[in-house]
Amino acid sequence: MSKSKKKLRVIPLGGLGEIGKNITVFEYDEDIIIVDCGVAFPEDEMMGIDLVLPDLTYLRNKKDKIRGIVLTHGHEDHIGALPYVLRDFNVPVYGTKLTLGLLKTKLEEHRMLSDTTLEVVQLGQTIELGVFQVEFIHSCHSIADAAALAIHTPVGIVLHTSDFKVDYTPIEGASINLARFAELGKKGVLLLMCDSTNAEREGYTLSERIVGETFEKIFVNIQGRIIVATFASNIHRVQQIINVAVNFNRKIAISGRSMVNVVNVALELGYLSAPEGTFIDINDINSYPFEKLMIITTGSQGEPMAALSRMASATHRQVEIVPGDLVVISATPIPGNEKMVSKTINNLFQKGAKVIYESLADIHVSGHACQEELKLIHSLVKPRFFMPVHGEYKHLIHHGLLAEQLGMPTKDIFIMDTGNILELDSSQAKLAGNAPSGKVFVDGLGVGDVGNIVLRDRKLLSQDGMVIIIITIDKETGTALTNPDIISRGFIYVRESEELIAEIRAITKSGLAECQGKDWSTIKNHVKKSLGDYLYTKTKRKPMILPIIMEV
Amino acid sequence: MSKSKKKLRVIPLGGLGEIGKNITVFEYDEDIIIVDCGVAFPEDEMMGIDLVLPDLTYLRNKKDKIRGIVLTHGHEDHIGALPYVLRDFNVPVYGTKLTLGLLKTKLEEHRMLSDTTLEVVQLGQTIELGVFQVEFIHSCHSIADAAALAIHTPVGIVLHTSDFKVDYTPIEGASINLARFAELGKKGVLLLMCDSTNAEREGYTLSERIVGETFEKIFVNIQGRIIVATFASNIHRVQQIINVAVNFNRKIAISGRSMVNVVNVALELGYLSAPEGTFIDINDINSYPFEKLMIITTGSQGEPMAALSRMASATHRQVEIVPGDLVVISATPIPGNEKMVSKTINNLFQKGAKVIYESLADIHVSGHACQEELKLIHSLVKPRFFMPVHGEYKHLIHHGLLAEQLGMPTKDIFIMDTGNILELDSSQAKLAGNAPSGKVFVDGLGVGDVGNIVLRDRKLLSQDGMVIIIITIDKETGTALTNPDIISRGFIYVRESEELIAEIRAITKSGLAECQGKDWSTIKNHVKKSLGDYLYTKTKRKPMILPIIMEV
Repeated sequence: MSKSKKKLRVIPLGGLGEIGKNITVFEYDEDIIIVDCGVAFPEDEMMGIDLVLPDLTYLRNKKDKIRGIVLTHGHEDHIGALPYVLRDFNVPVYGTKLTLGLLKTKLEEHRMLSDTTLEVVQLGQTIELGVFQVEFIHSCHSIADAAALAIHTPVGIVLHTSDFKVDYTPIEGASINLARFAELGKKGVLLLMCDSTNAEREGYTLSERIVGETFEKIFVNIQGRIIVATFASNIHRVQQIINVAVNFNRKIAISGRSMVNVVNVALELGYLSAPEGTFIDINDINSYPFEKLMIITTGSQGEPMAALSRMASATHRQVEIVPGDLVVISATPIPGNEKMVSKTINNLFQKGAKVIYESLADIHVSGHACQEELKLIHSLVKPRFFMPVHGEYKHLIHHGLLAEQLGMPTKDIFIMDTGNILELDSSQAKLAGNAPSGKVFVDGLGVGDVGNIVLRDRKLLSQDGMVIIIITIDKETGTALTNPDIISRGFIYVRESEELIAEIRAITKSGLAECQGKDWSTIKNHVKKSLGDYLYTKTKRKPMILPIIMEV
Repeated sequence: MSKSKKKLRVIPLGGLGEIGKNITVFEYDEDIIIVDCGVAFPEDEMMGIDLVLPDLTYLRNKKDKIRGIVLTHGHEDHIGALPYVLRDFNVPVYGTKLTLGLLKTKLEEHRMLSDTTLEVVQLGQTIELGVFQVEFIHSCHSIADAAALAIHTPVGIVLHTSDFKVDYTPIEGASINLARFAELGKKGVLLLMCDSTNAEREGYTLSERIVGETFEKIFVNIQGRIIVATFASNIHRVQQIINVAVNFNRKIAISGRSMVNVVNVALELGYLSAPEGTFIDINDINSYPFEKLMIITTGSQGEPMAALSRMASATHRQVEIVPGDLVVISATPIPGNEKMVSKTINNLFQKGAKVIYESLADIHVSGHACQEELKLIHSLVKPRFFMPVHGEYKHLIHHGLLAEQLGMPTKDIFIMDTGNILELDSSQAKLAGNAPSGKVFVDGLGVGDVGNIVLRDRKLLSQDGMVIIIITIDKETGTALTNPDIISRGFIYVRESEELIAEIRAITKSGLAECQGKDWSTIKNHVKKSLGDYLYTKTKRKPMILPIIMEV
């Protein structure tokens, strides 16, 4: 096959039609690179699950082709799956200094750091991975050191924005490198893959700087302690909080494991700065007057075990909320977390704190581009083909409509789902089947040992509990020996339901009589069915029924 | 005791510090009236629960004093508990025509209609209930026929706004009777109880009429079917949808049980109107061209069993979504429902429908007053005392702050919790202890038979499932007879975990050996503990462990 006939395959193995676990495979002939490798957080119906990983079955037999994993930034939905994935795919990982700094902390926790090759890349630098040249472009996002990628391939340039916003007044360093986007656009971009998170929102995302200005206004006359909760990874937000604290002559204590981790990494690598003596140990806060204290904490999403929620429920070891405390939640609830956040807010108010949150002031801005910013990127890049990425289906659809409004032909826009394969040469793009894809569940120490049957049982058990019927059968005669024992959990207060238990016994016994001489599985099914029908009629509940037969 | 020494007790038994199950008791000497009697919907941790009722223990021994139940409007969180509560408290129920019309449907479903006394009250009318005169004042809310109540008591007037907004251009009938609020204010109002739902929102709530104007704009050039989902009880919204359908010459089919019920009741009682022949049966929709069809449906909250969700997941019997369909979700997700609504939207897009929802257009307005409206009410009523009601703690707090800003002394504002008792005479008000209060769970046919232990077990089972160990012990010798049987559900794939099962057996057997001769409860606890420790170390999961001992 001549080289010109070979195709580039772009395969999102996560992140499309869903929020989280972003990962894209780029494959050309004998070379593969992987861009990002994130986790998703479990949906309500994934009971007991801790994390969701992408299914990488597609790569199982292609390990030798993988030249490296390239990371765009250090958020969990872009790097969180690496400690699991690197066990199977031990390939070099490339990313900016902060991204790899955050990854290091994770790998250390998993005791995998020494086995992994991490290669720091500068923004602006291009690395060579097989046939691919991957160029790291300076970008802006709600974490420092974020990159967009220009992937130079044998069939053309793929521009992958990853998560971004256009912030003309960023807290640190340069703005997103729009000039490079324009240059690449002029040169000719084959495929644009662009962040769709805010594709439904009109206008522009506000600059991160706005939040600092709000802090200045809010904190100016506060006499009590100030406690600010935000995303640990939002280094620029944390820097602004530090700046205001320093302005107002307050010492800073940090609470929450991930906040401590990130702040340490960021200080060490130079992404955060503060005058000597700004930070104090959280255990020492009582040595300082309240008006000289600022606490930066995790828990902006109301997560029950996070530091702020523990303060709100009076289970935090060092911080007891008292009247006069000001708590600022500098974040928006991620969809699904609204009620947990509300609960935290209500608890804080009940302890007498003043609480400021999103609906009351400009104390958070998004890290993702809104429609006008997306239009800017499309106009600069002028891609031949377009794949909206990073979003639920509704976000991808609206991003597609936006591209159409800018004049792109519908046929050149690919609204794809996780697992779909896009095949491109230098002039054409088409869908070319599906790669295996899906969700791998992490539950405790287990990875992939909980599947749909286990989850279905957890769901059933959570709804109506279970009833266990223990039946003792004489080995010789096949007749039931004693009254069946009944044990239930999560179904009904058994002690208050003697009548029901007596009836369960009676139905079981008459069932056993009918089934005399039949095999166990027939007996079990019969008991399950007749008891299930009875309990549903009587209670309109469907507990899991587990008949256990003991032969003696 | 002279009459002047007697006190009025106002006891919210639900609805404060929470969303839902609104109910307030007014007690004076030998007379009690109850205002509203609603349900709440279960929180995530109330697994398997269908509905939450208020705990009415406080009224158990006071049945003879109850003169009646007064309803302000027909929403579930104000009337939904009546079919359960009326079983114990069979007292007359007073409300406006539509409110009682909706209640009738519920009582019919529970086969309780013939046992209940329902008394229709006109807006503007005053009824006498023991020492209380209850005046129904014309109000505005997201349901027709809503009332505010002026409760004339021996110690003064209590003005209870219930849920309201100030809509100067309502769809039907007069606006909220602000003149009467002003008159009462002039006369002197002892206590104001006022809706706090939107106390955090600045400005004014938009008029319901805005939504109709948006519909007109959106629907003007649509060629396909139009499907509109909204709250069934929002009669004015439904009327506006009907009006637009008639304007655009479309027939209307109704889908979803509650929508069918409400539309029937409202048409019958004259709260909805449409030209003859406007409505068609949902089974006949295929006899009409798409551009002549409008479907009004339930499911605006993404409820999995509601009609719109069934259309979205291709399980609706009559309606199959096809490209060209326009779906409008005319509602805001209630907190906690965001992800279900998103799922429905994504599914509809995937079937090729165009979907319009809140973030894209003005297709919903709130039914609750924002800050400027609340200020208006406070200024007209000028109450001596104020109790913010109907909201989470954060809403009550902000409503209290609003009253302070208007000049009310902090000591006259009572931020209360469900169950707190406020005692008033004509010049004083003070907190006077607590009435028993709480949540009664409805699960299937059971009311109150599921409590915290059952819920705790459901929660445990949902997280990590369970492991059952069946141990057979010789009656004579006390020694274990055979290998223990292991059954697990919701824990792990047992077939893939032979090693684990073998280890469970071994640990159980060694535990049994150690406990030889001990009583069963000691044996069980020992097995639970040693297996629990082992499984946690091995898997970081904590399944429920159920040892079952059989003596033979």
